[in-house]
Amino acid sequence: MGLYSEILEQPEVLSNLLARQMKEVERIASALRQHEIRYVFLAARGTSDNAGRYANYLWGAYNRLPLALATPSLFTYYHRPPALSQALVVGVSQSGQSPDIVSVLAEGRRNGCPTLAITNNPHSPLAEEADYVLDICAGQEKAVAATKTYTAELMAIAMLSVALAGDRERLKELESVPLWAQQALKLDEHLQRISERYRFLRQCVVLGRGFNYSTAFEFSLKLKELTYTLAEPYSSADFMHGPIAMVEQGFPVMAVAPGGAVFDGLLEVLRKVRVEENADLLVISDRPEALELAQSRVPLPGGIPEWLTPIISIIPAQLFCYHLTVTKGFDPEAPRVIRKVTETT
Amino acid sequence: MGLYSEILEQPEVLSNLLARQMKEVERIASALRQHEIRYVFLAARGTSDNAGRYANYLWGAYNRLPLALATPSLFTYYHRPPALSQALVVGVSQSGQSPDIVSVLAEGRRNGCPTLAITNNPHSPLAEEADYVLDICAGQEKAVAATKTYTAELMAIAMLSVALAGDRERLKELESVPLWAQQALKLDEHLQRISERYRFLRQCVVLGRGFNYSTAFEFSLKLKELTYTLAEPYSSADFMHGPIAMVEQGFPVMAVAPGGAVFDGLLEVLRKVRVEENADLLVISDRPEALELAQSRVPLPGGIPEWLTPIISIIPAQLFCYHLTVTKGFDPEAPRVIRKVTETT
Repeated sequence: MGLYSEILEQPEVLSNLLARQMKEVERIASALRQHEIRYVFLAARGTSDNAGRYANYLWGAYNRLPLALATPSLFTYYHRPPALSQALVVGVSQSGQSPDIVSVLAEGRRNGCPTLAITNNPHSPLAEEADYVLDICAGQEKAVAATKTYTAELMAIAMLSVALAGDRERLKELESVPLWAQQALKLDEHLQRISERYRFLRQCVVLGRGFNYSTAFEFSLKLKELTYTLAEPYSSADFMHGPIAMVEQGFPVMAVAPGGAVFDGLLEVLRKVRVEENADLLVISDRPEALELAQSRVPLPGGIPEWLTPIISIIPAQLFCYHLTVTKGFDPEAPRVIRKVTETT
Repeated sequence: MGLYSEILEQPEVLSNLLARQMKEVERIASALRQHEIRYVFLAARGTSDNAGRYANYLWGAYNRLPLALATPSLFTYYHRPPALSQALVVGVSQSGQSPDIVSVLAEGRRNGCPTLAITNNPHSPLAEEADYVLDICAGQEKAVAATKTYTAELMAIAMLSVALAGDRERLKELESVPLWAQQALKLDEHLQRISERYRFLRQCVVLGRGFNYSTAFEFSLKLKELTYTLAEPYSSADFMHGPIAMVEQGFPVMAVAPGGAVFDGLLEVLRKVRVEENADLLVISDRPEALELAQSRVPLPGGIPEWLTPIISIIPAQLFCYHLTVTKGFDPEAPRVIRKVTETT
């Protein structure tokens, strides 16, 4: 019950988050503008780390903020944290419990940096350590595999980008996200049918680039957690620097390729793996040139501005992973080994 | 001829680099000390990106420099680069040719940031764009798969760390690297025998943490490029946040686990996958507790300080990949699809 219904809840969660938290995000943004911030230092694990990858591109492109992903072991095991100054220190965590993420915020605070927690639990240790708390208001997430808290984290990151830039046009675009999410959910039956073709999938790569580099990572994490498929995410550029050697006749390649600035480059890579290497392609896209290349076509709703596509393009990927889990005879509510809250140090 | 002999050349390459370039590195370090540097912004692809991961930990731990890995598509496709200020902008590239890496340095320069190229070609476009050039002096690399230029890049990164910190004790430790590299090469026959066991390996994960997070990435990149095995690298902490679900009876796990600050945490994960999940383990380590867990044991020379272990622990991994390529009947000099110089934008 948990996973599937949480996937379906997403339009409501996103709409609720925007309605309840946009004012608070604007308050946080104006407080942050009082600080001289040269870069963002962001700590997260698992699904939240993939949300961090979205922040890396979005805040870089629209807020001109360089972003460094933290290496928590320098803070915990080595006790040799880098010197943080004039940095916005951000922790992203659904539960707000993981000690390594909390310790990065604590170090930021000791260094006089502003600290921000993006979390589903505003009373967690992470929230308590932060100067500013952005509650993603996603409601309890029962499934072990995160879905609605991922898109809510992306939405929170997008809201903060808009608020920091004071950008009215993008604020309007944000308001359409719940509707697009609703449209994406209509792919449910189509994805159930497609998933059957992948009953014996054991391994694959997942390609994305730019804003949807995050989507490639999150799609592959769901494939691993739920279907136990060894799925490795790549930017299409990194893929060309070596790993493309693995592709042989029938090698499964998944691609997240909505239209946008990186589309032509990604399309060229897809053509190469499909036409020259005879790979087997699943493509999530709103562009016919990309969909036509694929054996499995997942058409996205049209008209979504590129910067918001990651919030929508992950939804069919979640549905696909859910159905594939069932098709493979696994239990989507009880993945092997992992627990909901993982406390790493 | 190329790949194998280039692996064997490494002690000489490392010793040569230290002898020829330490003075120049000290000159660069004292010039850099004139700048106010709050963080490092580093651009690289493929093998050089893995060298960048080493810099992330090493410069963070010993030079207190936070490090952000660049997202080149923001510079090339999106034309929306983040604002770089008070950053040291570094490009790492064997060939110095890739336009996306060059464009990150160009942007750094436009923003008045000091720029550094770490490259095997001091007359490349990357070197021409940089204020400071650290020539890794590895000689021509003929093999498509990079080996000696990887360890030379790590050595250059270590030399710069020592020079920036003015650390005489670590400088002495650096001088032993060529000797340890020589000792590691003695594992050659042992690794040839071990490689036979992996004739039908199709997929695996490679675990490492802290300084050797870089080694896990580079080991898995060589497995992909040369043996076409889908090998996914993980920090042991990220692995616990989901992907561990993939591990079932006999699942192949490779681990780079030399003694040091992160050893106990990594050992705990290895025990879990070996004892509870019955995974199949290959371990590269100087610690008996880790080696004893494994079906395939790769003993490292003892006495290497943890910060230098990545330069040595990759060497048996390179030899293993070379022999596995031959065992699988592939050509180590001509990996499918990829070329020596990959120019991505």
